[in-house]
Amino acid sequence: MEQELAPLRAAVREQGELVQKLKQEGASDQEVNKAVSELKARKKVLEAKELALQPKEETVDRVKMEDTLKRRFFYDQAFAIYGGVSGLYDFGPVGCALKNNILQAWRQHFIQEEQILEIDCTMLTPEPVLKTSGHVDKFADYMVKDAKTGECYRADHLLKAHLKKLMSEEKCTEEKAKEMDDVITQMDNYTQQELADLFVKYNVKSPSTGNDLTPPVSFNLMFQTSIGPGGNMPGYLRPETAQGMFLNFKRLLEFNQGKLPFGAAQIGNSFRNEISPRSGLIRVREFTMAEIEHFVDPNDKVHPKFSNVADLEILLFSSKAQTSGQSAQVMRLGDAVEQGVINNSVLGYYIGRIYLYLLKVGLSKDKVRFRQHMENEMAHYACDCWDAESKTSYGWIEIVGCADRSCYDLSCHTRATKVPLVAEKPLKEPKVVNVVQFEPNKGAIGMAYKKEAKLVLDFLAVCDECYITDQEKLLNDAGEFTIETEGKKFKLTKDMVAVKRFQKTVHVEEIVPNVIEPSFGIGRIMYSIFEHSFKIRKGDEQRTYFSFPAPVSPYKCSILPLSQNQEFMPFVTQLSEAMTKHGLTHKVDDSSGSIGRRYARSDEIGVAFGITIDFDTVNKTPHTATLRDRDSMRQIRAEVSDLPGVVRDLAHGTLTWAQVESKYPSFEGQETSKKE
Amino acid sequence: MEQELAPLRAAVREQGELVQKLKQEGASDQEVNKAVSELKARKKVLEAKELALQPKEETVDRVKMEDTLKRRFFYDQAFAIYGGVSGLYDFGPVGCALKNNILQAWRQHFIQEEQILEIDCTMLTPEPVLKTSGHVDKFADYMVKDAKTGECYRADHLLKAHLKKLMSEEKCTEEKAKEMDDVITQMDNYTQQELADLFVKYNVKSPSTGNDLTPPVSFNLMFQTSIGPGGNMPGYLRPETAQGMFLNFKRLLEFNQGKLPFGAAQIGNSFRNEISPRSGLIRVREFTMAEIEHFVDPNDKVHPKFSNVADLEILLFSSKAQTSGQSAQVMRLGDAVEQGVINNSVLGYYIGRIYLYLLKVGLSKDKVRFRQHMENEMAHYACDCWDAESKTSYGWIEIVGCADRSCYDLSCHTRATKVPLVAEKPLKEPKVVNVVQFEPNKGAIGMAYKKEAKLVLDFLAVCDECYITDQEKLLNDAGEFTIETEGKKFKLTKDMVAVKRFQKTVHVEEIVPNVIEPSFGIGRIMYSIFEHSFKIRKGDEQRTYFSFPAPVSPYKCSILPLSQNQEFMPFVTQLSEAMTKHGLTHKVDDSSGSIGRRYARSDEIGVAFGITIDFDTVNKTPHTATLRDRDSMRQIRAEVSDLPGVVRDLAHGTLTWAQVESKYPSFEGQETSKKE
Repeated sequence: MEQELAPLRAAVREQGELVQKLKQEGASDQEVNKAVSELKARKKVLEAKELALQPKEETVDRVKMEDTLKRRFFYDQAFAIYGGVSGLYDFGPVGCALKNNILQAWRQHFIQEEQILEIDCTMLTPEPVLKTSGHVDKFADYMVKDAKTGECYRADHLLKAHLKKLMSEEKCTEEKAKEMDDVITQMDNYTQQELADLFVKYNVKSPSTGNDLTPPVSFNLMFQTSIGPGGNMPGYLRPETAQGMFLNFKRLLEFNQGKLPFGAAQIGNSFRNEISPRSGLIRVREFTMAEIEHFVDPNDKVHPKFSNVADLEILLFSSKAQTSGQSAQVMRLGDAVEQGVINNSVLGYYIGRIYLYLLKVGLSKDKVRFRQHMENEMAHYACDCWDAESKTSYGWIEIVGCADRSCYDLSCHTRATKVPLVAEKPLKEPKVVNVVQFEPNKGAIGMAYKKEAKLVLDFLAVCDECYITDQEKLLNDAGEFTIETEGKKFKLTKDMVAVKRFQKTVHVEEIVPNVIEPSFGIGRIMYSIFEHSFKIRKGDEQRTYFSFPAPVSPYKCSILPLSQNQEFMPFVTQLSEAMTKHGLTHKVDDSSGSIGRRYARSDEIGVAFGITIDFDTVNKTPHTATLRDRDSMRQIRAEVSDLPGVVRDLAHGTLTWAQVESKYPSFEGQETSKKE
Repeated sequence: MEQELAPLRAAVREQGELVQKLKQEGASDQEVNKAVSELKARKKVLEAKELALQPKEETVDRVKMEDTLKRRFFYDQAFAIYGGVSGLYDFGPVGCALKNNILQAWRQHFIQEEQILEIDCTMLTPEPVLKTSGHVDKFADYMVKDAKTGECYRADHLLKAHLKKLMSEEKCTEEKAKEMDDVITQMDNYTQQELADLFVKYNVKSPSTGNDLTPPVSFNLMFQTSIGPGGNMPGYLRPETAQGMFLNFKRLLEFNQGKLPFGAAQIGNSFRNEISPRSGLIRVREFTMAEIEHFVDPNDKVHPKFSNVADLEILLFSSKAQTSGQSAQVMRLGDAVEQGVINNSVLGYYIGRIYLYLLKVGLSKDKVRFRQHMENEMAHYACDCWDAESKTSYGWIEIVGCADRSCYDLSCHTRATKVPLVAEKPLKEPKVVNVVQFEPNKGAIGMAYKKEAKLVLDFLAVCDECYITDQEKLLNDAGEFTIETEGKKFKLTKDMVAVKRFQKTVHVEEIVPNVIEPSFGIGRIMYSIFEHSFKIRKGDEQRTYFSFPAPVSPYKCSILPLSQNQEFMPFVTQLSEAMTKHGLTHKVDDSSGSIGRRYARSDEIGVAFGITIDFDTVNKTPHTATLRDRDSMRQIRAEVSDLPGVVRDLAHGTLTWAQVESKYPSFEGQETSKKE
């Protein structure tokens, strides 16, 4: 296998070295970008080959799995009876329960463990906020339209498919093929005009009708709407939950009694109006995210609990490994931080915690890696970024991002709003600083703005030096300036406000916190859990099950009376009520199928355990019933009154099946593993 | 008090009798509506008087409460640093935790207890769905605009305010006042044109500028957007979660193995673009709902568990009491169903369960009532409807609706989609019925539509008699007809399909289930909890607390070291880790304030219990600490290792404070109730 990969690895390494060289020689951005694109293309070829060479038993039967997911209503296309809408899915009872459990596990693992401040902000977001964050201007893809039918296509996808088709034609010369291959490699670097020219040059037509296409236009991926009846407040559905934490930073800091560091988090839906969504749950138009913003002193990026995760051995795919054609390597997290592979221990701590979370909810250890962004991949303000990736039948897909975004977001909102989003840090020794302040004439402002004077005074009290100096100039030149706060404008004249400059001794300094942002795509994590836990029973291709860990299993337990005989019912009721009391989701199946058939149905949706009530339960005292483990299909027999407590401890993960087996007698009486 | 109310009660009764009489005499709709409006107006006057006469100590100090809610960031205006948007609120850590707990309690109380099928559907909804539900055409308010500034007002609110002002003027004659009073009473009955005429007649101008107003126009309250890039799929943010359950009915029925009755539920956000939102959390533009749709055989509206709630004594405000000027009456739920006050026991069961839920999450027993919709209030298809109302400083507000919507929703979607949303019910005796079916020629359809032939065949298999007969006519007249499914159109000709009529013996009948819909406004329930649990310490006006029940308290426990002395820290860590392990939200406050001051801060946000670590904890073995109950401020002393388990049981509601006091020695050493 390594033999087949060797030339591809060499090709990546060679290109990585070229990129390095171009940067050192101070080559133009364009030259560097071109080389980086080629590097990415070669990496992709290498990775595709790696995946293709993996043993067959490691791949999931996606068709069979998706049939189960649809048939048992884990999730399905939304609005199906109205023809469906692509990119929108509804979760049925099993999917919804699994999702709730994943989120509950997330709250326990992160929010409770780290004492994170969870908030819940609106999805509707007015335009200025997303203008500041850059989404209004930059969150877009190029699109072309069928000139007659109006059908839309993503320009890059369409051009690429078209070129691949041309390249596969017999008449295509080697030279032409090379040229087109170059275009595909450079796809992400083209400007709108360059793309338009390429569509003309290669005579691209609508794939479904053959009609002409309109030139590429930029299509913003946010859903736009209008807030309020006036039509003058454009808004969007948020494309991420992060902005809510930044906008509430001051309130959160105050809630934390002014102290850094602290984490804030939010779980909720976000929206992206994909041009042509596909790949099921991987790329959808409405999705649930869970995001943490960990605010930290930029000079103190050290996590006090890092030692708790330092010994974890994790598959890391560093930027350096990627540019030199190597594979991802298992590394001790402590070493990765010590050697500077991971920028700091706060980032390192979260990588460790994310890893533990993903295993806890059911991802396979050997199908999770952390991939570092390469220098040219990362936003200009970020100082390090690692994606948790999961290996699926779609290849390695990003499921969690974990970025050190420095002070970028808070600084942008401070600039846009004039509200300083800063924290105070005690100085070791006091120092003398220059102060510039507005000095309001409260009387004059009160006279002019009555009840609203407080708004004005509040605003003037928080302005930064740069803003004050600008307004001072206006005050001197024009005799007035205008401020805007809470949507209202106020004109201020020389008799209302002056500017005061003085020195003072300070004991604290203001700092703009940096932010480490772990950002979870819940739908993609769910999908990965499906693939990683979908199993087929040995010797029976028709029997499948999901090996969900008990704490996230949609249902913890099935309750199955041996038949519809009424004698069993009191025990069903007793068990069901006890389970409800313990808060355990369970499913009573008193339909007429055989026990084996009903266990197969129960396994198919990943119910963790099953209890069967038989005639021994009814006729003998103490009343006992069987408890069955889904994965091993092994059974024990215990008193009916004991069972709910056992299932509770199993479901909470405080008891293992092995412990149960060592405590209770095993049971072999019913054969339930064979198909009827 | 009753003396003052007597004439108002008489006035209501008189009008109620008039409405009754008009209906019996077959008066015109217009006459009846007019009389009903007058009835409603008189009811309002009566209720306002009742509220005004209630003892002062029953009213909450809303200003003081709202100050706490804002200062401690329970919730606050969203996008405040950008000037804020009215009707949009962000929940901070305390509010968010409370909300999560309320929802978790809801899941336990309803979903787990009743084995309800919870689903999770998209908020984005394509237009045809909401066209069917009636929201596109009818979910609207009239609005007028300031002709120059474009500022918008709700037409009815503005007209009413204007008339009230005119009526209060000295020059207003009694006759004129009477006329205007009539207009106010009839406000809800006017057509768009009538409203427009009234604005002209009374010369209504913009209240903030005095400018002219545009004539009233209908403003749809849904947020509109466009799904996908083509601009040809208008969509809305859902105004309720209910539609998701109707659209997924077939999948849910199948999940329930074809059996009725079953409940489906959904928790999620909905959106209403209010013209001018006010009243804080009561009327907002984005809000969380929790809705149940209980599908039931229309001929079998009997709930098997009704006896569990039959003995509840609940304040019921029947339609009859309302039209005769009486007050709400406490009634045994069993009697109310037996006497036909409540239409059926399914509805009765849910009323009982809703009542128990509201008390569980912290509403006051004496501030909750169920009000029946009067006949003219109810949608034409509903057969009974009761609102749970909570008494607040805004008056009685609706917090949960509980309606029997008959078969309306499923029937509408069946008509619109041709997909029969029905259930099968076994017949006691088989019967012979006429059957009309499409008989497809699979070969011809396969030839014509290849891969998509299955779509066509699936569609043809589910069409109802009425639709088939219509298409048969087209087939006979024009030789073809066109179907539309999954967004695609297919032409079918005589060689592809025929219509077959025959008789068959059936053992099941198809029924359209009826639906009982309990619908919860989570924000309004939260707001009611705030008002009902906001308390002021006797003898200290400055000290306030929220007496949230422990299971919904945002934080279960505070951990307070007596001072910042490092010796306390190991105990703080030990307790905090144990609490995390038990999944208990808690807050460590190791700031420098006195214990009393820190308890006051803890009480202010409703933390249920508090543990103080003092020098006895450190110096004596076994190590003990104090545990304090927020409401009584009483304390006990127990071993540190025991405390997390005690708090867990208190938080789960399986242990009461009285039981704790009987088991552990009380502690009086620290005086923490006085203000420093």
